[in-house]
Amino acid sequence: MGMIPRVMTDQDAVFMAEALSVAEQGLYGAHPNPRVGALLVKEGRVVGRGAHLLAGEPHAEVFALGDAGAAARGATAYITLEPCSHQGRTPPCADALVAAGISRVVIAMRDPNPLVSGRGVERLRTAGILVEEGCMAAEAEALNPGYLQRMRHGRPWIRLKQAMSLDGRVALADGQSQWLTGEIARADVQRERARASAILAGVGTVLADNPRLAPRLGTGLRRYPVKVILDTHLRTPPDAALLATPGPTWVVHHPDAPMTAQAALRAAGAELLPCGGAEGRLDLSALMAVLARREVNEILVESGPTLASALFKAGLIDEWLLYVAPLLLGRDARPVLTAGPYATLAEIPRWSLIRTERMGDDGKWTLRPRES
Amino acid sequence: MGMIPRVMTDQDAVFMAEALSVAEQGLYGAHPNPRVGALLVKEGRVVGRGAHLLAGEPHAEVFALGDAGAAARGATAYITLEPCSHQGRTPPCADALVAAGISRVVIAMRDPNPLVSGRGVERLRTAGILVEEGCMAAEAEALNPGYLQRMRHGRPWIRLKQAMSLDGRVALADGQSQWLTGEIARADVQRERARASAILAGVGTVLADNPRLAPRLGTGLRRYPVKVILDTHLRTPPDAALLATPGPTWVVHHPDAPMTAQAALRAAGAELLPCGGAEGRLDLSALMAVLARREVNEILVESGPTLASALFKAGLIDEWLLYVAPLLLGRDARPVLTAGPYATLAEIPRWSLIRTERMGDDGKWTLRPRES
Repeated sequence: MGMIPRVMTDQDAVFMAEALSVAEQGLYGAHPNPRVGALLVKEGRVVGRGAHLLAGEPHAEVFALGDAGAAARGATAYITLEPCSHQGRTPPCADALVAAGISRVVIAMRDPNPLVSGRGVERLRTAGILVEEGCMAAEAEALNPGYLQRMRHGRPWIRLKQAMSLDGRVALADGQSQWLTGEIARADVQRERARASAILAGVGTVLADNPRLAPRLGTGLRRYPVKVILDTHLRTPPDAALLATPGPTWVVHHPDAPMTAQAALRAAGAELLPCGGAEGRLDLSALMAVLARREVNEILVESGPTLASALFKAGLIDEWLLYVAPLLLGRDARPVLTAGPYATLAEIPRWSLIRTERMGDDGKWTLRPRES
Repeated sequence: MGMIPRVMTDQDAVFMAEALSVAEQGLYGAHPNPRVGALLVKEGRVVGRGAHLLAGEPHAEVFALGDAGAAARGATAYITLEPCSHQGRTPPCADALVAAGISRVVIAMRDPNPLVSGRGVERLRTAGILVEEGCMAAEAEALNPGYLQRMRHGRPWIRLKQAMSLDGRVALADGQSQWLTGEIARADVQRERARASAILAGVGTVLADNPRLAPRLGTGLRRYPVKVILDTHLRTPPDAALLATPGPTWVVHHPDAPMTAQAALRAAGAELLPCGGAEGRLDLSALMAVLARREVNEILVESGPTLASALFKAGLIDEWLLYVAPLLLGRDARPVLTAGPYATLAEIPRWSLIRTERMGDDGKWTLRPRES
């Protein structure tokens, strides 16, 4: 009595895996919401599928219920995240599931959003629906590292992307670095950009390369990442290319930066974010808290070695994407980031290798700091 | 008339793929012979399989014929390399195929050995057997890079193996480097050792690490690689560990090396190979020609940055195996090999990425110099 019978089966995992795959339709658009997928199954047959595609549009559950129509009555719903129970931009999904006559709900994980956490599950159980939790939870976590970190720790998920040589260098001593990696690696970077809530770069990169900082994919995007520029003294020229590309631009500067530059960048369409810090520098940790409050989930950092080293030293890198070109830039070339010198092997921070992939002529490493 | 009808089919490639897979049974033992596999097929059914396992033992064709017995008559033979036509340590295989009544022979490639090249095919055709060539030739090439290079160019296939950090460094400034990579990567190194004809190291490595230089695999080996030590001045101690491990030891030295050291190492079981060179150094290219004449096919070089750099500069690296540990050794640490400085990106030699693999916590890159 009081013990809920464990009735989850291998079949449940198969359906949840499909719900997770459906959720990926929201990879580029769901920001600032989590990516969510829902699958409705009745008598072993899928009767409805839905994903949350774009913020402001219906949630995954609503799409799935619409897809199923009358067949939803008595069905099991597989949802990759606990359904919401509050009125947001759209009505609560838990209520919609109850109204549609769903009889059982399997969720991969609870939503750590304090407006939801546990209440969605409670709302369903109160209505007499059998709710089961934790089906493919690790896979569901992996879908939304930024949203989950923001909800739990008030910080975005920071993904540092760099292109380097086999000997860990990004450019020759004089800065030459064009086309280090090939086309296939560069196309992969576009996908990494498109999924990010924000792309972050330092003003040094802006001045050196005049980058667009907007993803270019084969198909148009319905949402573009915010471009965040770290620019202590506001040296970004008002005619910088990135000010004309899709997506908002936020320029982070020290409060002491010249007023004329502030006015010029505002006139060019940028939003200015003053950010204090010791010795006239920006406080990166404080900035990340600000970006989280502005609902930034995942940040792709596209920077030179200086900003990369600062993030590394501040312990702010959650994931490191290294595109490695098969060549040696040699002894005088610029290192990917400044680490050490270390006196003993024991003091060297280790990374976990998450994935190693081939990208045409180049390799791609996905690393995360090792938990110690 | 005179045109041989092309009768090779997809089915032929499937059988040749199986013959290639059978050939891998000789991966560790066939040296100094090539690895060869043979498959006999009659009426679409495999009736015999054979591989060349160990030099001095029968060739693949003989094992396959023995396996098939009377069923060989009228069968098609799939052989990964042209059968031999000369009396070597064993009688000619071409004659055995004829005697067994094989009606058709499909070979992946000709044997560049001047004692064979084309004569095996000719012998079969003269006996009225239909011979077809070039089925899965690229895969057959990949099986014997060392044997083929030795036959064609009088040089072994030189595979440089190194373990490094993400920033291309092998040890801290003071030399600390123990356990950079993990167990799975180190087990893979044992397999790379076992397949080599010879393992080559510099005396610096011998003095610093006192290595065994003999593969340790779960099962015993029927053949052990030659241990080749580059030791200009004969500083290898007669009680070095490698002198007691399985497999012969060849110590390469400058002719001027002390006679007493020569005598001591000979007494300890080593064979001495004098090798001249400019400025009292060893001539690596000349050494490779000597090793080829001694029937060394594949060399695994296990060296520090100095020898690696010398091989790189001499253009002697055919394949580069990099085991990469996910950490940064930092700015003062020792580079994997000395390259550059380069003034422009255009002058930097590029490598082709053959494979990227995960080895537990580490990565493994297989690279070859890019043909330009």
